[in-house]
Amino acid sequence: MNEILSPKDFKHKYSVTVRFHEVDMLGVCYNAVYINFFETARLEYIKAAGLMPSRGLFSDGNIFFIVKNEINYRGYAYHDDILDVYSKISYIKNSSFGYDHLIVNQKSGNIIVDGKVVIVHVDSNTRKAKRLSEKFIEKVKAFEPSVKILRE
Amino acid sequence: MNEILSPKDFKHKYSVTVRFHEVDMLGVCYNAVYINFFETARLEYIKAAGLMPSRGLFSDGNIFFIVKNEINYRGYAYHDDILDVYSKISYIKNSSFGYDHLIVNQKSGNIIVDGKVVIVHVDSNTRKAKRLSEKFIEKVKAFEPSVKILRE
Amino acid sequence: MNEILSPKDFKHKYSVTVRFHEVDMLGVCYNAVYINFFETARLEYIKAAGLMPSRGLFSDGNIFFIVKNEINYRGYAYHDDILDVYSKISYIKNSSFGYDHLIVNQKSGNIIVDGKVVIVHVDSNTRKAKRLSEKFIEKVKAFEPSVKILRE
Amino acid sequence: MNEILSPKDFKHKYSVTVRFHEVDMLGVCYNAVYINFFETARLEYIKAAGLMPSRGLFSDGNIFFIVKNEINYRGYAYHDDILDVYSKISYIKNSSFGYDHLIVNQKSGNIIVDGKVVIVHVDSNTRKAKRLSEKFIEKVKAFEPSVKILRE
Repeated sequence: MNEILSPKDFKHKYSVTVRFHEVDMLGVCYNAVYINFFETARLEYIKAAGLMPSRGLFSDGNIFFIVKNEINYRGYAYHDDILDVYSKISYIKNSSFGYDHLIVNQKSGNIIVDGKVVIVHVDSNTRKAKRLSEKFIEKVKAFEPSVKILRE
Repeated sequence: MNEILSPKDFKHKYSVTVRFHEVDMLGVCYNAVYINFFETARLEYIKAAGLMPSRGLFSDGNIFFIVKNEINYRGYAYHDDILDVYSKISYIKNSSFGYDHLIVNQKSGNIIVDGKVVIVHVDSNTRKAKRLSEKFIEKVKAFEPSVKILRE
Repeated sequence: MNEILSPKDFKHKYSVTVRFHEVDMLGVCYNAVYINFFETARLEYIKAAGLMPSRGLFSDGNIFFIVKNEINYRGYAYHDDILDVYSKISYIKNSSFGYDHLIVNQKSGNIIVDGKVVIVHVDSNTRKAKRLSEKFIEKVKAFEPSVKILRE
Repeated sequence: MNEILSPKDFKHKYSVTVRFHEVDMLGVCYNAVYINFFETARLEYIKAAGLMPSRGLFSDGNIFFIVKNEINYRGYAYHDDILDVYSKISYIKNSSFGYDHLIVNQKSGNIIVDGKVVIVHVDSNTRKAKRLSEKFIEKVKAFEPSVKILRE
């Protein structure tokens, strides 16, 4: 059992408001929507870390696919709630790396969900795993000094 | 004011079940979801009319964009309702053509929504409007004899 | 043919960034997503006009359903584009009222879509149309002086 | 590391076709969409096991929330691919139970994703965990004899 992270474990925060169409018939934010929030937050993270190609996502030929999504639901969010989505790259392996996410209700401070996401860097032609560049690692380390480098 | 169409005005029918995540906090199918239903029905229509490229949508370089969506909401649909989505190409112009859609609750026969959609054929490079081919028109006419040809 | 509105015809603006999952396989913002943008913008409009119930949407027993959505697509939006969504209540009838919307690329100023939406006020029990209150009309008029009142 | 399940480990199958709006700008089925597929499959599973209330989901006052979603992505799905979604309740605890899912491309037999989902039964008023009834367990055991009962 992993310990639950808290906002102080993160430096990057992205805030999002729960939209009407993101709420389900039980009146709470639909479970799959948090995957969208994680993803949108990661793209802001990538920009903040200087990793977004200048002409937009994938424009430099580097393609990334999600290998694993894991979400734990610890509370409910409602329409119009403002959520703080915390993200960090926690480790980097040869061709893959992992994110930790935490979503907190901005007003109450209650944890709504947390999650772990694994991303793989793939060759744009073969769509097979491709080793991450040293430049990528350096940029992540500069932005997120606590990242663990697990390279072989 | 247009008259409302009825199922007997259509030959193509595609059935879909309202999924949990498609229902909103008022307990009814969310209004934007019908656009997805229209679109999925049109792709089945295109297959039925022999217009789907053999290697999948857009694989022959013909790209189509939506120019206009118009939906009238006349009833409610609920989770797990089975809906019959009726579609037809009603007219063809130089580079654009129009669909009529009607969605009916399969069990009750009640009309849920109707709509009109306008599609434009664009050049895959310039993304500018491009004249529809005679072959396209012949196939549509063979499948939908009532289609109006409004060419200049 | 209606004239196309421009940003100067509106006082309310809501900005939104196109998210990754809102882009389709042609690389542009998916056509149904604009309905979500319109809706999110209308909820901000309702707040700005002092019409949002204090305990959240529908919490005062007033329920609103969409009767008609009409969208004209005039340009493309891409991932990460910032869009300005302009909204106004253009008229009020007995139990229904209409919105005009315009979406513009914030950077280029290009019009991406415009649309008209008709909303009906319904009784929360019967789900039948219910006359809009004078208080509603007064609040809208105070916020949007140009609104046309078309009451019988 | 868990072993990967195969279709022969399941008795329940639900088939779904990837819709246009479910594909992202890389041309593959968007990662969050599989959560919708899992959920739709579970609702069919619940019907098949005789667990769906006669007047629709939640109509008997039993409410279920998702506690955890875990998805492993092992392949890509494209527009119009037909996917077989396999589901089973693998264990039942006091107030929660777990599903295993596997999604396979119907034509190629390739595994696309697998996943584990944990659901909790909650009281409809307090939204706190509530012990699952013996009747629920008996129905699941009748439908899925291999289910593990992990009750205290």
